[in-house]
Amino acid sequence: MSIITLLTDFGNKDWYVASMKGCIFSIAANTVCVDITHEIQPGDIRSAAFILAQCFSDFPEQTVFLCVVDPGVGTERSAIAIRLGRSYLVGPDNGIFSYLVKREKDRGIEIHKIENESYFHKRPSHTFHGRDIFAPVSAHLVQGAAISDLGPRLEKIEQLILPRADYQKREAKGEILFIDHFGNAITNIMQMKLEPNFQSDKIMLTVGNYIIPLVTTFGDVAVGESLAYYGSGGFVEIALNGGSAAEEFNLQIEQKVEITLR
Amino acid sequence: MSIITLLTDFGNKDWYVASMKGCIFSIAANTVCVDITHEIQPGDIRSAAFILAQCFSDFPEQTVFLCVVDPGVGTERSAIAIRLGRSYLVGPDNGIFSYLVKREKDRGIEIHKIENESYFHKRPSHTFHGRDIFAPVSAHLVQGAAISDLGPRLEKIEQLILPRADYQKREAKGEILFIDHFGNAITNIMQMKLEPNFQSDKIMLTVGNYIIPLVTTFGDVAVGESLAYYGSGGFVEIALNGGSAAEEFNLQIEQKVEITLR
Amino acid sequence: MSIITLLTDFGNKDWYVASMKGCIFSIAANTVCVDITHEIQPGDIRSAAFILAQCFSDFPEQTVFLCVVDPGVGTERSAIAIRLGRSYLVGPDNGIFSYLVKREKDRGIEIHKIENESYFHKRPSHTFHGRDIFAPVSAHLVQGAAISDLGPRLEKIEQLILPRADYQKREAKGEILFIDHFGNAITNIMQMKLEPNFQSDKIMLTVGNYIIPLVTTFGDVAVGESLAYYGSGGFVEIALNGGSAAEEFNLQIEQKVEITLR
Repeated sequence: MSIITLLTDFGNKDWYVASMKGCIFSIAANTVCVDITHEIQPGDIRSAAFILAQCFSDFPEQTVFLCVVDPGVGTERSAIAIRLGRSYLVGPDNGIFSYLVKREKDRGIEIHKIENESYFHKRPSHTFHGRDIFAPVSAHLVQGAAISDLGPRLEKIEQLILPRADYQKREAKGEILFIDHFGNAITNIMQMKLEPNFQSDKIMLTVGNYIIPLVTTFGDVAVGESLAYYGSGGFVEIALNGGSAAEEFNLQIEQKVEITLR
Repeated sequence: MSIITLLTDFGNKDWYVASMKGCIFSIAANTVCVDITHEIQPGDIRSAAFILAQCFSDFPEQTVFLCVVDPGVGTERSAIAIRLGRSYLVGPDNGIFSYLVKREKDRGIEIHKIENESYFHKRPSHTFHGRDIFAPVSAHLVQGAAISDLGPRLEKIEQLILPRADYQKREAKGEILFIDHFGNAITNIMQMKLEPNFQSDKIMLTVGNYIIPLVTTFGDVAVGESLAYYGSGGFVEIALNGGSAAEEFNLQIEQKVEITLR
Repeated sequence: MSIITLLTDFGNKDWYVASMKGCIFSIAANTVCVDITHEIQPGDIRSAAFILAQCFSDFPEQTVFLCVVDPGVGTERSAIAIRLGRSYLVGPDNGIFSYLVKREKDRGIEIHKIENESYFHKRPSHTFHGRDIFAPVSAHLVQGAAISDLGPRLEKIEQLILPRADYQKREAKGEILFIDHFGNAITNIMQMKLEPNFQSDKIMLTVGNYIIPLVTTFGDVAVGESLAYYGSGGFVEIALNGGSAAEEFNLQIEQKVEITLR
């Protein structure tokens, strides 16, 4: 049994995701399809790249990650498949894989352009490569097709520029990368890059006009109070206990944040 | 292993879909349940019929398509099961299957009324036939029950009137059938019914006061520009590259469109 | 093959649910994951408890119900696992299991605190116990781990106070417990607690200034008319045929309702 995860901006109200799954099961009947999300804002490659990087490590090896946020469908952008360690990534070459591949490159990488039409839907459309190219290719990889059979090897992929935080001895400056369903804001400041003395209990986070204490978890502040904490993905996050920090503080993606050791 | 697809207007916030799946797994443990969508507007049989017809062919043979958009639950409308080729359709007889069955009738059709209570939930409610009748019947079909055992054979099903486009030598007139998550509008003008000279690059689509070129795919126009194209389902579609055509042009279902060869 | 159901307030736009499933499949590859819903309002334990109780009986025995509506993550609230008959419940001890356990206690109950870190994610975070504690524990239970191995036995769990209806010979007074996707309102008045003469056709329900007849099903009133009926979960429900009763009558959770035999 093998897993194909699906990450798209197709939404859940149409039949597009179901058509992809139908194609997958037509080729690889024993696959387990796992939806990551289909609620990426149309064309928001950056959020898709972030989400993929956040959950990749939670899946077993040999998972195929099928990712279709593809505003360039029908342009010259390539279709690619990547072996990353023992797992596979399949989708358009538009930067959607760049955060993950950069971080995990030590696992071993092999990139191929997808050109071999014998792995495609029999009559591929010009606008639904999710169903006609990416889904069948993913299913064939699960069935044991060789990635080298898909097309020529590539040396590199499109890169998104990931804004990097600046780390000093007693402070760090970064920005908000993502705002989740709860209104928690995830910043690009990484716990592992902070000095050891940032484990102290005298750390404050500044965002806009607000100063927020960095604590361990929600229970460390009262309901209705704000907190910063090292989140489950290794980044500093901002939350409001029992509410939405994004609403309360009007937080935005790309907004600047600062961590200071008092 | 067999597939049951689920298509309903039950939404995703309650437990109704989960209850149907629980019933299915209680009867047919090795089934794979695939959600088509549960976000049909309550009672919108027409959109459900369209969506079912769009994705049917992407699934393998022997799939059971369980469809519950059933504003008439608890009235005299019949419950039916249809064998279409080697696949099955299960749901209320209210027109939800009519587009698909009309198009695919050459595969072979056998229609039965569902009356055999030995295939029902032990104490069926009057308002949740999805769980109490349609889900268990679907699961029993997956398990090999004979469709003829469900109830008497019927000769026909309820029909929705599908608005047909009018095709001339140098023009075609139709209307918008469906608007998807991206704001793309799918019309009822079919590529295969247009004259061969409609492959030319001098085709324009008119909708409201807007004139839009028919091209091959998104990459043929600049971001922010509109386009018409032959979509993945074989219909002419209207889109805005990088945006929502429905919002930009205030498109509505049933709105008239016209294709002209210049 | 075994089933793990997932019920959370995580929403569908982020990767949180996928991360939980990835953890489950990493431990128990042959599990079937069934989403109950992830659209519980953040922290709404009461609705989650209601939904769990509504669909529990539709799943086969030996199902593991993984429930994470956990506003107290990172506080002193316990993590618990409960054997209920031959099924399992896994989640925070905050009342989410209380409606179900109270109703089904005759099946046999065994409660354990979850403390054995050998069943946890290797480096559990302080804020994502769904992935780091509850998902792996659920997967290990599916794999045959003994519930007694998770931690010390507990005698009781947190209780939510379920508002009880008052039943008299010719009337019953209760309140609205839940409003579903269709705008149907589910009250806490139970069919089985009403006198047998409440089967009569002269029963009226009063909510706010509205008086609504209790009938068998939707087909008993015209489209556009309101109705009350015994719902699929055994409670009296309020609906509008072809519309949303909640919108039409501005219904709210906890709003008082009254049943009268005329």
